[in-house]
Amino acid sequence: MFSAPSGCGKGTVLNELFKRLPDIHYSVSATTRAPRDGEVDGKSYYFITKDEFNNLIKTNGMLEYASFCGNYYGTPKEKIMECLENGQDVILEIETAGAMMVKAVHPEAVLIFMLPPSVEELKSRLIGRGTEDMDTILRRVGEASREIQLSRNYDFVFVNDKLDEAVDTLTGIIKYSKNLTGNNIDLIKGVLEQC
Amino acid sequence: MFSAPSGCGKGTVLNELFKRLPDIHYSVSATTRAPRDGEVDGKSYYFITKDEFNNLIKTNGMLEYASFCGNYYGTPKEKIMECLENGQDVILEIETAGAMMVKAVHPEAVLIFMLPPSVEELKSRLIGRGTEDMDTILRRVGEASREIQLSRNYDFVFVNDKLDEAVDTLTGIIKYSKNLTGNNIDLIKGVLEQC
Repeated sequence: MFSAPSGCGKGTVLNELFKRLPDIHYSVSATTRAPRDGEVDGKSYYFITKDEFNNLIKTNGMLEYASFCGNYYGTPKEKIMECLENGQDVILEIETAGAMMVKAVHPEAVLIFMLPPSVEELKSRLIGRGTEDMDTILRRVGEASREIQLSRNYDFVFVNDKLDEAVDTLTGIIKYSKNLTGNNIDLIKGVLEQC
Repeated sequence: MFSAPSGCGKGTVLNELFKRLPDIHYSVSATTRAPRDGEVDGKSYYFITKDEFNNLIKTNGMLEYASFCGNYYGTPKEKIMECLENGQDVILEIETAGAMMVKAVHPEAVLIFMLPPSVEELKSRLIGRGTEDMDTILRRVGEASREIQLSRNYDFVFVNDKLDEAVDTLTGIIKYSKNLTGNNIDLIKGVLEQC
């Protein structure tokens, strides 16, 4: 699970990551909100109805979900479990509350948080974009600070200072997190069993 | 902290690691036992008297220690702390009980355990050496099994199947364990503080 505050360059880092790890499965979220211009069903989101969404919740088909501005957003479980069973890595782009929900149920899931070099720097980047007014920017910076506080609950953190280094680090963390003991209990059992 | 059962190839892997990471500081243990033929003071062990050892314990100068066959073995703290303060990585070759003692006091320390492909394989390797009788081998295999059980308490585990891959993995784990959140609390504070 990969989180980063808005404006931290998450999309750019993920695009580079997919070039390096083309076999990783990117989990697409589901939402009940209407598609915006240019959004593609099954790529940007799975656009589903409220009934379909509620049905997925009832049948335990959502890894995590939340409502925001009257719309539901969530992570459908089926495809993820299918990939994991086939030994394929899965990456979820997820906000902090959702990550905590998943970790509570799946403690073996690895939580990675990408930090900006500083909150000041993040604020400058958002101002530099020139797409939002100062009120919106300050609200986003406040949200970012709250998310960064929660990064303490993640397994790994790293700073997005230079793009190449950030992608190197994310790739390395994904690779070597496979050696975390929590992901190797069956391996340890196997080594012992043959005794 | 790096542990592996006897016969698992720990020495060979460490020698290759030092070629790749020449700047890492290898922590030399202290012991009250007499040097054996070919052992060099300050390289194999620091050979010290029981008085000196007890003095180090009393002055909180030992990271961990244990007695074995009437002799003391321990990890002097001073040099390690000096290296860490200078930003230098330190590797401790340590048995499982010692690793647990250090982790209790220094939860930020990273515990890495190297597994044999199987306990059967380990037994074959020990028999293949031809240097010990079967009773000794069976006792060592029993000890190895107990140590492997304790690997569940380590942060990372990996299998020593092929030497090159094992050294790659150990090097990668050492590198990316620096991104574990527990080692980055000050970094997170720093990112927030500049706000």
